[in-house]
Amino acid sequence: QRKGAPEVILGATKETAQIIAMAHGLLLSTGRAIISRLRPDSIAPLQKEFQAYTVRTLEAARAMVIYSPDYQRKSTGGQVGVISAGTSDIPMAEEAKLIAEEMGCTVTTIYDVGVAGLHRLLAPLRDLLTSGVDVIIVAAGMDGALPSVVAGLSPVPVIGLPTSIGYGLGGNGVAALLSMLQTCAPGLSVVNIDNGVGAGITAALVANRVAQAREHQSQ
Amino acid sequence: QRKGAPEVILGATKETAQIIAMAHGLLLSTGRAIISRLRPDSIAPLQKEFQAYTVRTLEAARAMVIYSPDYQRKSTGGQVGVISAGTSDIPMAEEAKLIAEEMGCTVTTIYDVGVAGLHRLLAPLRDLLTSGVDVIIVAAGMDGALPSVVAGLSPVPVIGLPTSIGYGLGGNGVAALLSMLQTCAPGLSVVNIDNGVGAGITAALVANRVAQAREHQSQ
Amino acid sequence: QRKGAPEVILGATKETAQIIAMAHGLLLSTGRAIISRLRPDSIAPLQKEFQAYTVRTLEAARAMVIYSPDYQRKSTGGQVGVISAGTSDIPMAEEAKLIAEEMGCTVTTIYDVGVAGLHRLLAPLRDLLTSGVDVIIVAAGMDGALPSVVAGLSPVPVIGLPTSIGYGLGGNGVAALLSMLQTCAPGLSVVNIDNGVGAGITAALVANRVAQAREHQSQ
Amino acid sequence: QRKGAPEVILGATKETAQIIAMAHGLLLSTGRAIISRLRPDSIAPLQKEFQAYTVRTLEAARAMVIYSPDYQRKSTGGQVGVISAGTSDIPMAEEAKLIAEEMGCTVTTIYDVGVAGLHRLLAPLRDLLTSGVDVIIVAAGMDGALPSVVAGLSPVPVIGLPTSIGYGLGGNGVAALLSMLQTCAPGLSVVNIDNGVGAGITAALVANRVAQAREHQSQ
Amino acid sequence: QRKGAPEVILGATKETAQIIAMAHGLLLSTGRAIISRLRPDSIAPLQKEFQAYTVRTLEAARAMVIYSPDYQRKSTGGQVGVISAGTSDIPMAEEAKLIAEEMGCTVTTIYDVGVAGLHRLLAPLRDLLTSGVDVIIVAAGMDGALPSVVAGLSPVPVIGLPTSIGYGLGGNGVAALLSMLQTCAPGLSVVNIDNGVGAGITAALVANRVAQAREHQSQ
Amino acid sequence: QRKGAPEVILGATKETAQIIAMAHGLLLSTGRAIISRLRPDSIAPLQKEFQAYTVRTLEAARAMVIYSPDYQRKSTGGQVGVISAGTSDIPMAEEAKLIAEEMGCTVTTIYDVGVAGLHRLLAPLRDLLTSGVDVIIVAAGMDGALPSVVAGLSPVPVIGLPTSIGYGLGGNGVAALLSMLQTCAPGLSVVNIDNGVGAGITAALVANRVAQAREHQSQ
Amino acid sequence: QRKGAPEVILGATKETAQIIAMAHGLLLSTGRAIISRLRPDSIAPLQKEFQAYTVRTLEAARAMVIYSPDYQRKSTGGQVGVISAGTSDIPMAEEAKLIAEEMGCTVTTIYDVGVAGLHRLLAPLRDLLTSGVDVIIVAAGMDGALPSVVAGLSPVPVIGLPTSIGYGLGGNGVAALLSMLQTCAPGLSVVNIDNGVGAGITAALVANRVAQAREHQSQ
Amino acid sequence: QRKGAPEVILGATKETAQIIAMAHGLLLSTGRAIISRLRPDSIAPLQKEFQAYTVRTLEAARAMVIYSPDYQRKSTGGQVGVISAGTSDIPMAEEAKLIAEEMGCTVTTIYDVGVAGLHRLLAPLRDLLTSGVDVIIVAAGMDGALPSVVAGLSPVPVIGLPTSIGYGLGGNGVAALLSMLQTCAPGLSVVNIDNGVGAGITAALVANRVAQAREHQSQ
Ligand SMILES: Nc1ncnc2c1ncn2[C@@H]1O[C@H](COP(=O)(O)O)[C@@H](O)[C@H]1O
Ligand SMILES: Nc1ncnc2c1ncn2[C@@H]1O[C@H](COP(=O)(O)O)[C@@H](O)[C@H]1O
Ligand SMILES: Nc1ncnc2c1ncn2[C@@H]1O[C@H](COP(=O)(O)O)[C@@H](O)[C@H]1O
Ligand SMILES: Nc1ncnc2c1ncn2[C@@H]1O[C@H](COP(=O)(O)O)[C@@H](O)[C@H]1O
Ligand SMILES: [Mg+2]
Ligand SMILES: [Mg+2]
Ligand SMILES: [Mg+2]
Ligand SMILES: [Mg+2]
Ligand SMILES: [Mg+2]
Ligand SMILES: [Mg+2]
Ligand SMILES: [Mg+2]
Ligand SMILES: [Mg+2]
Repeated sequence: QRKGAPEVILGATKETAQIIAMAHGLLLSTGRAIISRLRPDSIAPLQKEFQAYTVRTLEAARAMVIYSPDYQRKSTGGQVGVISAGTSDIPMAEEAKLIAEEMGCTVTTIYDVGVAGLHRLLAPLRDLLTSGVDVIIVAAGMDGALPSVVAGLSPVPVIGLPTSIGYGLGGNGVAALLSMLQTCAPGLSVVNIDNGVGAGITAALVANRVAQAREHQSQ
Repeated sequence: QRKGAPEVILGATKETAQIIAMAHGLLLSTGRAIISRLRPDSIAPLQKEFQAYTVRTLEAARAMVIYSPDYQRKSTGGQVGVISAGTSDIPMAEEAKLIAEEMGCTVTTIYDVGVAGLHRLLAPLRDLLTSGVDVIIVAAGMDGALPSVVAGLSPVPVIGLPTSIGYGLGGNGVAALLSMLQTCAPGLSVVNIDNGVGAGITAALVANRVAQAREHQSQ
Repeated sequence: QRKGAPEVILGATKETAQIIAMAHGLLLSTGRAIISRLRPDSIAPLQKEFQAYTVRTLEAARAMVIYSPDYQRKSTGGQVGVISAGTSDIPMAEEAKLIAEEMGCTVTTIYDVGVAGLHRLLAPLRDLLTSGVDVIIVAAGMDGALPSVVAGLSPVPVIGLPTSIGYGLGGNGVAALLSMLQTCAPGLSVVNIDNGVGAGITAALVANRVAQAREHQSQ
Repeated sequence: QRKGAPEVILGATKETAQIIAMAHGLLLSTGRAIISRLRPDSIAPLQKEFQAYTVRTLEAARAMVIYSPDYQRKSTGGQVGVISAGTSDIPMAEEAKLIAEEMGCTVTTIYDVGVAGLHRLLAPLRDLLTSGVDVIIVAAGMDGALPSVVAGLSPVPVIGLPTSIGYGLGGNGVAALLSMLQTCAPGLSVVNIDNGVGAGITAALVANRVAQAREHQSQ
Repeated sequence: QRKGAPEVILGATKETAQIIAMAHGLLLSTGRAIISRLRPDSIAPLQKEFQAYTVRTLEAARAMVIYSPDYQRKSTGGQVGVISAGTSDIPMAEEAKLIAEEMGCTVTTIYDVGVAGLHRLLAPLRDLLTSGVDVIIVAAGMDGALPSVVAGLSPVPVIGLPTSIGYGLGGNGVAALLSMLQTCAPGLSVVNIDNGVGAGITAALVANRVAQAREHQSQ
Repeated sequence: QRKGAPEVILGATKETAQIIAMAHGLLLSTGRAIISRLRPDSIAPLQKEFQAYTVRTLEAARAMVIYSPDYQRKSTGGQVGVISAGTSDIPMAEEAKLIAEEMGCTVTTIYDVGVAGLHRLLAPLRDLLTSGVDVIIVAAGMDGALPSVVAGLSPVPVIGLPTSIGYGLGGNGVAALLSMLQTCAPGLSVVNIDNGVGAGITAALVANRVAQAREHQSQ
Repeated sequence: QRKGAPEVILGATKETAQIIAMAHGLLLSTGRAIISRLRPDSIAPLQKEFQAYTVRTLEAARAMVIYSPDYQRKSTGGQVGVISAGTSDIPMAEEAKLIAEEMGCTVTTIYDVGVAGLHRLLAPLRDLLTSGVDVIIVAAGMDGALPSVVAGLSPVPVIGLPTSIGYGLGGNGVAALLSMLQTCAPGLSVVNIDNGVGAGITAALVANRVAQAREHQSQ
Repeated sequence: QRKGAPEVILGATKETAQIIAMAHGLLLSTGRAIISRLRPDSIAPLQKEFQAYTVRTLEAARAMVIYSPDYQRKSTGGQVGVISAGTSDIPMAEEAKLIAEEMGCTVTTIYDVGVAGLHRLLAPLRDLLTSGVDVIIVAAGMDGALPSVVAGLSPVPVIGLPTSIGYGLGGNGVAALLSMLQTCAPGLSVVNIDNGVGAGITAALVANRVAQAREHQSQ
């Protein structure tokens, strides 16, 4: 739990038995186990194994959090915004949200705006900025244009989360990632395609550092 | 001059002597020679060779048109809009404009808007659409987001012209082209990176067909 | 329904329940729901859900249109031609045709010509052009040579629709797309691999604008 | 100057005359003009044109800042660390530093550590973290391993700045960028290859937001 | 068995019947058959066919060795170290270990260290080097940074074994391989992604040559 | 001179002194030296060195042949056709022609047809086939469509020679090569981009084998 | 059946019903239907449909030929050699052999040599050349080195057939194809990865042309 | 000088002044400075600066070694073989040789064999192996086939050094590197394209470890 970032078990390349063993280890040491990119066939065995625990499953995001009965998540006061371009990007956005929440942040979401419907973005984005958000994650696939648009309109750092939505040349998130790397908008950095975990951790690190400075202030 | 599209001499891979010979051929048969992607060292010899002709040179766009003394360009009534995202995209936009003009269209330009400055786009785009434009070319490099934005706001076909602006991964127009291919906006088709000639011909074919229908009407 | 282009639900990355909800939304607001790239397992549940509606299913093209009982499609007078190189390209050609029809165009098809059989192309293409077609879509995979050939023979704009047919290096439509981008033929613009929806919308926007000009004339 | 990020003129794709005109514009409106990626032949004419101004030139970083005589840079209190893996990465690190300074941050540098010499990194990194740095930029080419190492050791967000150092497969910064995207370390986000401007702006946005919270506290 | 390297049957692209026939051939000529990259459905039939033999199966590594009843593996005295970055890299590390053992080496493993946990690496690596290891294989996926770190700390040759762990751009081992090729650390050579067989053979050739020199000495 | 194919000195990666030495060697052993891909600065020194010899220079093709005073080229009776799509492809076509001639074939050329002008191809191709050509080389860049068209119309083997003509995505011959590899036309094999030497040797081997069979007949 | 090359139905992208219809068409017009790249689920229905016909199935090569009861294959006298590097390449080699046989050639095979066992190649290759073979196809995956070796040793044209064998970077036949394109050996041309049909047709065209010349002779 | 590998200054990305400073530093601390990939314009100034020193310049290999007057290179007894495929690969082979020599090894070279001339390889390779070489470096460009052939014939580890020789697809060493990674031959590991330094260090580490074991023996 160095730097406040929880260890996350990457489920996709592990046997269910391995995941269970690692989860027990994390529950013992930290009271919580977060698993990402679960293969569908691992979900039921995990839920059975951890019946006695509190289990939070995000099926679409292929993520699961298991809490010891006495686990208490601390709130840091960090404020994170998560925006998704389309409905297909929501699972990755939810993965990022989950991580930021597990790191103590309050997360506000704006889902299913998208470049073709900029009018659907402007009012909620204004509200989000007014509410004092510290950092914004924008999940987008296909042309990946939304993060640039948001970065062009926001005075806070923006983290681009390209998603593997889209087919043909530049599909599976490649065009989205490349166009975020090529952005003309200021203050946009990126993580890899579908890496909601990475986007969530980075956003939470930013928000928690700001929150910590605020907190010192209010003391 | 099949289909109203003029033959264009691609200068980059030809010797100056070859270009001169081909230009004389086209001047004889059609009264006009258009040369694109001229190497800098070909410009002066061509201007010298065709002193007795009317010569139009677009240095930044590396293009030249040579007219026989008695050449008369016919106006078709086709209306083409050309938008560029940044100042660096203007040479490619100008190449497209030149071709559309040579095919008889009237061309209106909006240069140096760009995603980071959407407010700079909205008013002139509204004017362009109100003026009855038939088709719009949008030149953009780097993230190539502008054509999608324009296509999302316009009821006419849009042709994306990716430009070789941008460095790093996805640079030289690759991200721009891929994100145009991945667009979520309706009615956007594309030509290759820096292919202003192709964009201009396609736009003029569309505009001239509409103009022809309009003309029949007014008879 | 901005610019006359219908919203199309991309089925591949959505849960069936999500698709159903979105389709109900579109039926309420516009009387019609178009779904593309349906996963096979979504088809039956959708047909069951919308038993009371008129449902048009194109299984090979993985597309479906659901109409409210009182939906009336308006004819615009736009004329679109759709050509496919091989039999394997027909599903993508059909997707493009479906969209152009839903946008009010009359669509004429020439299927299964192909470069190896140019003689099978020439007569039907001549008929198509004589009939007054406004724009032509050409679907082709493997070497993707057909759109260039058609563009070289036709006085109207051509939209290249590369298809994911072909294996080995340049397979899955990559060589087809690249060779369309590199075309020497005038007036060819392209959409992404298998993007029949995009080709159909672009073609219909062109054809409908021409038709509108014609219509004004005949009034 | 939306969001505190200054407009930066990208010199590489512009004529010197264009750069001069844009610089005059920025000097008039904001009292300062920042130019990045200057072509060598633009430097002397710019220095000549702006003799009457204060000019800061970073030749290796190909960057220049021109200040109006009365320009006053405000200090925000934001603390940014900049680390470079090798001596060849220093120009890009310097570009990032320049931007962060122009945005009011105090920048501390650690240059020429590198994975092969981890022992050269540990002590200065500990000092940097103890001094209360808010965010760290790590510039690295070739294998790009350093940003992951730093992110694994630091409780603040880290921005990976891949540099175009390295030849052969994965050269010109490609391996560096890919391995940063594939990082196992928490809290690392990236910008494009050689994009010191982007890294600097992102870091300064983070640091300035933290500083602002601190400042409110100290009031 | 030229050069002491056993022939290894690549199972993935062969029919089970073909594998059985080839295994019988090798058992006859050398007393041992090694099969790598077995498809899951080949395992049971092979175990059934070779019931009368000693069979060693490494399911995760998809490898199998079949020994004639009287087969005696000779120990060479070569010392090989095998390190894996994460738990997901263990199967490929195990494949390499198996081959080195079958070539007579003694293999010592250090599993599941990783760049994010350098502290978990240092002590066991020191022990490994002190024990007189002749060559080290390092298996790593994702960013592939570990082999460079090990090569920077070890006075023996290091063989990088990139693994197909990781998703998004540079996933499936591509970033890992590229960053190993771009290493700044001395004495690191690489084999292809997931090629545990190649890494094992190369390491054993090195270790066995050193062991042979040692042996001559002790005679 | 194994298999009737002359050794060819690849000039591009050699010092002029090295080329001269190798040429002297070949002149001594075979009476002829062929050099391809000469750097421009090597031409004059070579011409000077071999003043006493017969020297044939193809500047555009960057090729040179040096003959001993008594060298006699034998004619084999093999018939090769060489077709180029555009004028820019002629240098590569000429390189192929040179090699086939040096291998004793008679070469007939059809230059500057191209897909956009199929009508310019049909008559000369019919003549070429009627004349009894044994094999045809087709040089084409950009979309590389011409070799497929020729292969579809010809009863003899066709060798595709992609050329590095074309810019943007798929430029430098990549799209041309890929579309030749993806051809639907029967009997088309390819060599690498700009490899006129390889195309010439392959064509001459085919033609000479046919000629040899013919010759046996006429005896 | 232009140029003696039979039409081949590409099964992979077609419905079984479509294949049956096309096969009936070819049987009617030519007395024979050849189908390549059959999906496994198409085989049984096809065998059932054509019970009354002579059916030749090559399961590993995914190929089938159906003959009308009275079909007579004519022998041309063309001599084709087919060599495979490994056992995994045999299916593609068999596909090529089938086509060459259907075009009337006599085919001699040398299977499972390979670079690591050059000694296994030399004697049978000498025999093959002595027997008067007209052209050789070499199928090879992974490093694709064998075709170059064969071309270096043979006085007849060689056709490289890269196969999709191999994993990791350059896998699926990519390295094999690229190294054949980069060959230093004279007289090697290539077809696409796994394109046994293309290799077979090209080889048969060469062999049949030679055979025709031989035949004229013996008259 | 960790692990016996000297630090090497990478000249390509450094100013001459920087190189001079770093060289002085290395001369002071170790008595020797090795510089690789020197830009041509750095050579003369370096030779002038270090007139008082012993300077070894390999112009083709772009390498330089500067020795303090009293520097004594120790011989380790390690035996390294270096083979080059063509004459164009010699500079990279020489770079590897230089490094291995500077690390105390005796280096034997076999230059300009190549796959097309296997007969030129066999005798000298047999001599090299008989002489007791410990490890072999094979430099090869274009198809990169030679290292696999050597690895198939040698009982010692082989290090593949792909060189940037070759044009077209897979050119600049890409096909060479990929085909080495895809090798079927046992005991071949690789370094990046043109990385003679890396090949030399790896080979010397192997040879020196063997030599050390031998030495212990002879004491
Ligand atoms: N979805 C994810 N994407 C990227 N990294 C992850 C993800 N889930 C876990 N990780 C990180 O990847 C590493 C997994 O290593 P291991 O579980 O040992 O194979 C840990 O550092 C995790 O924090
Ligand atoms: N333009 C060319 N393209 C491809 N191969 C060539 C070319 N010119 C020469 N070669 C061959 O490449 C090899 C050159 O080897 P070397 O000259 O020793 O580097 C010889 O086998 C030549 O026949
Ligand atoms: N295995 C194959 N590889 C390459 N081309 C093929 C293969 N099988 C058939 N073809 C050709 O591909 C084309 C298929 O077109 P169609 O069957 O109409 O989609 C025809 O020209 C066939 O001759
Ligand atoms: N030609 C070369 N290829 C690969 N690495 C090199 C080469 N020359 C020097 N190096 C290494 O690359 C690093 C150069 O770092 P620097 O000189 O600080 O930019 C050092 O670790 C050198 O040992
Ligand atoms: Mg998006
Ligand atoms: Mg743009
Ligand atoms: Mg096609
Ligand atoms: Mg680095
Ligand atoms: Mg790793
Ligand atoms: Mg062409
Ligand atoms: Mg092979
Ligand atoms: Mg070679």
